[in-house]
Amino acid sequence: MAEPTPPSRRSRRDPEELLRAAQAGDRAATGRLLSLVERGGAPARAVGRLTFAPSAAIERVVGVTGAPGAGKSTLTDRLIAEVRATGRQVGVLAIDPSSPFSGGAILGDRVRMQGHATDDGVFIRSMATRGHLGGLALAAPEAVRVLGAVGLPVVLIETVGVGQVEVEIAGKADTTIVVVNPGWGDSVQANKAGLLEIADIFVINKADRPGAAETRRDLDNMLDLDTHMGAWRPPILSTVAHTGEGVDELWATVDAHVAHLEATGELAARRRRRLEDEMGAVVLRLLERDVRELEGGARWAGALDDVVGRRVDPYQAAINLIGSVEGTPPAR
Amino acid sequence: MAEPTPPSRRSRRDPEELLRAAQAGDRAATGRLLSLVERGGAPARAVGRLTFAPSAAIERVVGVTGAPGAGKSTLTDRLIAEVRATGRQVGVLAIDPSSPFSGGAILGDRVRMQGHATDDGVFIRSMATRGHLGGLALAAPEAVRVLGAVGLPVVLIETVGVGQVEVEIAGKADTTIVVVNPGWGDSVQANKAGLLEIADIFVINKADRPGAAETRRDLDNMLDLDTHMGAWRPPILSTVAHTGEGVDELWATVDAHVAHLEATGELAARRRRRLEDEMGAVVLRLLERDVRELEGGARWAGALDDVVGRRVDPYQAAINLIGSVEGTPPAR
Repeated sequence: MAEPTPPSRRSRRDPEELLRAAQAGDRAATGRLLSLVERGGAPARAVGRLTFAPSAAIERVVGVTGAPGAGKSTLTDRLIAEVRATGRQVGVLAIDPSSPFSGGAILGDRVRMQGHATDDGVFIRSMATRGHLGGLALAAPEAVRVLGAVGLPVVLIETVGVGQVEVEIAGKADTTIVVVNPGWGDSVQANKAGLLEIADIFVINKADRPGAAETRRDLDNMLDLDTHMGAWRPPILSTVAHTGEGVDELWATVDAHVAHLEATGELAARRRRRLEDEMGAVVLRLLERDVRELEGGARWAGALDDVVGRRVDPYQAAINLIGSVEGTPPAR
Repeated sequence: MAEPTPPSRRSRRDPEELLRAAQAGDRAATGRLLSLVERGGAPARAVGRLTFAPSAAIERVVGVTGAPGAGKSTLTDRLIAEVRATGRQVGVLAIDPSSPFSGGAILGDRVRMQGHATDDGVFIRSMATRGHLGGLALAAPEAVRVLGAVGLPVVLIETVGVGQVEVEIAGKADTTIVVVNPGWGDSVQANKAGLLEIADIFVINKADRPGAAETRRDLDNMLDLDTHMGAWRPPILSTVAHTGEGVDELWATVDAHVAHLEATGELAARRRRRLEDEMGAVVLRLLERDVRELEGGARWAGALDDVVGRRVDPYQAAINLIGSVEGTPPAR
């Protein structure tokens, strides 16, 4: 017979207990909350409920995206130092949908690069997989809220590549930084990957390399053609992340962008829109799950048999399946 | 005061009456049934119900697709003649999602080309728009069933271009003919447009022009690389539609393909799959409509206010909205 789980171990798994510990500075507890969010299911939902209200304390969420090799990790490390210089704590979420690992894969890189691993004011976490409803795109905002709820007022979201999910996640920030490198084609690829639409700030990193001026001109031309632009035209900055050159100006520009969003009321509007998008995405996922459940089930098979046997037409069969007839036939 | 609608006029609009007239050979009534299907709403649903069982009389549905200018219309006209030579009646549905017109736009072209307009055994109809749930992709199979139900045992579906909707519609046939022309790139474009996957038969039309051999070789190479191919390797035929050359062999190949499908049980499987796809598509459309209705409504706005006010998290708000909680929290 298995021994009963000792209370201390059980309490470590309880979301409320974990949140209290995390809010008291226990980083391991923060990590476990994020693991629960990643794994999904009822515990993830509990974490989502518990952290939602306290996450309102988040001051800003900054997304950093761009092609692999653009220097995003080094740049993010430099930005961490900028935030720490203001005395604020910072949480970093590194998104890598292509990796089968999570929780520690990227952390190794970090430790190598900077001294943040020994700084209690910095919490870095990678997030790679989510084998549950909604995937990474739905897990990421929940993870951001966990970071905010445990007392990290600035959250950086860094993506490893520019896949669709990564661009989507990086774009759901207060300020999104798109990192490109000098050289023909990089700016064009940024356009193709949909980065132009989500960029609040462009950074030409490795700007000490040849081609920086041309890349700036390309980006400028693309911005000239952008008819959807609002009052903020994304500035184009230059950095050399490995020396730190230009990073202070970049962070000052993030400040300026947030100030612009606040002054125009766009910050609240953007956050409201993000929450609405998230709610809508969950609604769609739940409905899709309903359809998948239908497809595997006896009712689906029965409905299909009726259709194949020409007893019920496909439209009526669909209505019967989702039970959406309420007295009158729905318009279509 | 408006005079009461005379009974004769009202009966012309009644789907049951229209179907009876159409089955008795009244082509104008067939046209009106198709107009009802195009317009959507409750009358379309009634037509769908009425025509579903009798449409089982359809012997075969043949799709003809390919890039604009490939000669599909001329080829289709030649195929009509082949069908008529067997004594069978034939219905033709010409799909053009890019056109704002329907019902008669393409008919003009036809009348110019061949003598079919005076042949009661041929019914040609174009379908361009459908501003209702499901669009053309859902209206097309209903229109095909109307043609079958009024006594046209062979139905040809011709698309004007190779847009996503057109490829999808043309692919939902018993036999799909993909028309290309000689010349570098045409076969490559066919691959890009997804035509390779839906082709049961390739036709190199205008085969008297230079480059036919290269195009055949390109297509052959692509077929060699196709790992999803079943027991039927799509044959590559050559035609010159404007002289009629090769069209008899094409129709014989359609016969051979249908015979192959019947012998392997694939014909019934294919039709069953089409009906399942259609039922599933309607389910999804109805659910999406539910979501759209939700989005415009007071419940959605109230749920969003609760989320923005941090009283309810997005996941719980979504669950509340679609009312999918039934005792236990759903897994995700």
